[in-house]
Amino acid sequence: MPKIINIGVAGVGTVGARVVQLFEQKAGHFSQVLGGAQVKVVAISGRDKTKDRGFKTSDYHWCKNAVEIAKDPDVQLVVELIGGADGVALEVCTTALANGKHVVTANKALLAKHGKTLAELAKQNKVQLKYEAAVAGGIPIIKLLQEGLIANSYARLCGIINGTCNYILSVMESQSRSFNDVLKEAQKLGYAETPPDLDIDGHDTAHKLALLTALAFGKLPTLEGAYIEGIRKITSEDIKYARDFGYAIRLLGVAKRAAGGEIEQRVHPCLVPLTSPLAQVTGAVNAVMLETDEVGPVFIAGAGAGAKPTASAVVADICDIALARKTAPFIRSVVKLKTHTPVDIIEHRGPYYIRTVVADHDGVLAALTNIFGQNGISIERVTQTPDDDKGTATIVMITRNTKESAVRTVISLLKKASYVRGTPQMIRVEMV
Amino acid sequence: MPKIINIGVAGVGTVGARVVQLFEQKAGHFSQVLGGAQVKVVAISGRDKTKDRGFKTSDYHWCKNAVEIAKDPDVQLVVELIGGADGVALEVCTTALANGKHVVTANKALLAKHGKTLAELAKQNKVQLKYEAAVAGGIPIIKLLQEGLIANSYARLCGIINGTCNYILSVMESQSRSFNDVLKEAQKLGYAETPPDLDIDGHDTAHKLALLTALAFGKLPTLEGAYIEGIRKITSEDIKYARDFGYAIRLLGVAKRAAGGEIEQRVHPCLVPLTSPLAQVTGAVNAVMLETDEVGPVFIAGAGAGAKPTASAVVADICDIALARKTAPFIRSVVKLKTHTPVDIIEHRGPYYIRTVVADHDGVLAALTNIFGQNGISIERVTQTPDDDKGTATIVMITRNTKESAVRTVISLLKKASYVRGTPQMIRVEMV
Repeated sequence: MPKIINIGVAGVGTVGARVVQLFEQKAGHFSQVLGGAQVKVVAISGRDKTKDRGFKTSDYHWCKNAVEIAKDPDVQLVVELIGGADGVALEVCTTALANGKHVVTANKALLAKHGKTLAELAKQNKVQLKYEAAVAGGIPIIKLLQEGLIANSYARLCGIINGTCNYILSVMESQSRSFNDVLKEAQKLGYAETPPDLDIDGHDTAHKLALLTALAFGKLPTLEGAYIEGIRKITSEDIKYARDFGYAIRLLGVAKRAAGGEIEQRVHPCLVPLTSPLAQVTGAVNAVMLETDEVGPVFIAGAGAGAKPTASAVVADICDIALARKTAPFIRSVVKLKTHTPVDIIEHRGPYYIRTVVADHDGVLAALTNIFGQNGISIERVTQTPDDDKGTATIVMITRNTKESAVRTVISLLKKASYVRGTPQMIRVEMV
Repeated sequence: MPKIINIGVAGVGTVGARVVQLFEQKAGHFSQVLGGAQVKVVAISGRDKTKDRGFKTSDYHWCKNAVEIAKDPDVQLVVELIGGADGVALEVCTTALANGKHVVTANKALLAKHGKTLAELAKQNKVQLKYEAAVAGGIPIIKLLQEGLIANSYARLCGIINGTCNYILSVMESQSRSFNDVLKEAQKLGYAETPPDLDIDGHDTAHKLALLTALAFGKLPTLEGAYIEGIRKITSEDIKYARDFGYAIRLLGVAKRAAGGEIEQRVHPCLVPLTSPLAQVTGAVNAVMLETDEVGPVFIAGAGAGAKPTASAVVADICDIALARKTAPFIRSVVKLKTHTPVDIIEHRGPYYIRTVVADHDGVLAALTNIFGQNGISIERVTQTPDDDKGTATIVMITRNTKESAVRTVISLLKKASYVRGTPQMIRVEMV
């Protein structure tokens, strides 16, 4: 066990600064919980040396170039908090690993793209690559999958792993407000970035899901073939109708063993039953539901972002390394990881929510349900709400289990029907 | 890293048998997730060699006496699944540790009583003592506290950590049935033991809470000064009134930093807000809410008992040891653990639920509320429900934050009041 481990923090933004602060402010705590080991921050890098970060920058070796840290012979562990799937972050990590330094990172985009290469590099150089902070912030979901639930196989995992989307959806829900309205407010409050695309369009969730999928199903991490759909299309009307049917709307990342044994990897808004713990998750909170063969369902929830929760996860990784607790990045050796065989979303089976605005004439409901029936789709529930001012009605349906390809056929037929106004809305239902 | 680790399972009941089965049935899985390491079950002990356990007993060295396993020079790791705070279980663990063998146990009673001694013995002999299965079955709550949330301090932890009590309370709730009625059924179905005292009277919860308290607050594990109250007194009427006020009733283990810095350690039925994730936990499920300083609230739920979930936790510990991941049993070195300074329950502050049956006369409500007021207790909410047949009324109150000593004074005064029938019911409210 190394008695002292010197660390360098590449990127002292809010998370990096909190990591440094933690070891300063809780020195007594860490001297106890680390037993004989000691973690010493020796080098840091950032954009602006003069910025107030809650600690004396001059107490640490300041590197203008983050890659310097990865080459610093005094540093045994590099914390990468720069971000981005390539560029400097990738260079810092590969350089650090190649130089025999452990790497702790919060960078999901980097790992979703280069996880295989980085894990191999770590193995070759007999160092660790850890990334607890990359998924679900302060919740130790990576450790659960890597260690705590090691005896388990998984049928499905569903995660609310983007706090921004969950914040927006739950405010839309509680205040009956529109997506654009809430997004603008979230940007003002700092809950959403400008531009918000990475979060809102599901890409951030997809990056994290790629890592969870790799861990749970023994696959190489990849975004290839993952279905990704964001929350822009969700209206407060959908949220209201969903609730009337007993569902909430959440953006989920879902990885699921499909009938053929392949793994579905998909990100999209879902109707989830109000009785599901995932429906109870509101605000910027993250949560993951794991369906395991030995323990049954395991649910964990907590803060998914923010400087303190993310730093908590980074520091947990650092402590594991300081205490010489070793874990392979993707549990199995990289050579044992299977290549991901994408499952096309049109093969997806499940219930669907479909909202259609129609001309409010006699026989329209019959004509509409007829199209569903002719395409082999059974309807579980239906409501029709007239809008007398417009002479239209809104028909909302929840289907029984059906194949996405059939739903798409029906929607293309509906779009052509004379009595349908606009494009029908379709949201998948996830029974979780 | 040891390439092969030989284990002996002392006690092949349902959990022990599942541990053996897991390594047989999932050999391919473990060869992948353990990398180079291999776990080999070599010896087992149990009461009846001929019983069908789902594997060939003759494939393993059978020990009539469990202590033999702890002395077997071929065994490097002993799994203790005998149970009981003393006796054979204690002898097996001390012998194994003294002989330089790692110990994995599910025995909360043993650890709550002898945790300090056993942890010292493990340290002296440079072996590990692990007990993930001792609390909350398949949920890796011990690992969360020991490793995943290592950067955190705790203000409070609340756990539903006895599946039997939660099963009974949630069936009472959903089916409006009496405690005795549901208990009898639970015993028939195997959800409750006969006699049920260890579960029903809160002792099992107290054992587990002692371990969680030690981990979260850096205390020596102990039951000393812990307040323990079971669920026998809860009626379906209480559950109904609680729900009307927006609460569910759950048996919680609570450890909380009190005003003076000491740690309250208490087990009792609680009203918890229906909006709390703990109120959503029904059936034999376990759940823990951790209030941390860095991550904020962290909530985890899953199966708290049963052969498969418990074996999953035992096997996770075994794998950690096989992979040479070392963790001190109580995080900190035993010499750093603080002695627990008990907090008397009469010092407890919080809201209280008080149900009183009174003679249905004019002025009774005023007289009753007057007693509360004179003792400095403010009422948050009150309902009065007349029972015309009996000429009585049931008055149910939720108080504002108050001290337990004041509540006890009021209840003793109420018991003497001419208009009060029987003994008022008192249940603490936990805002979680």
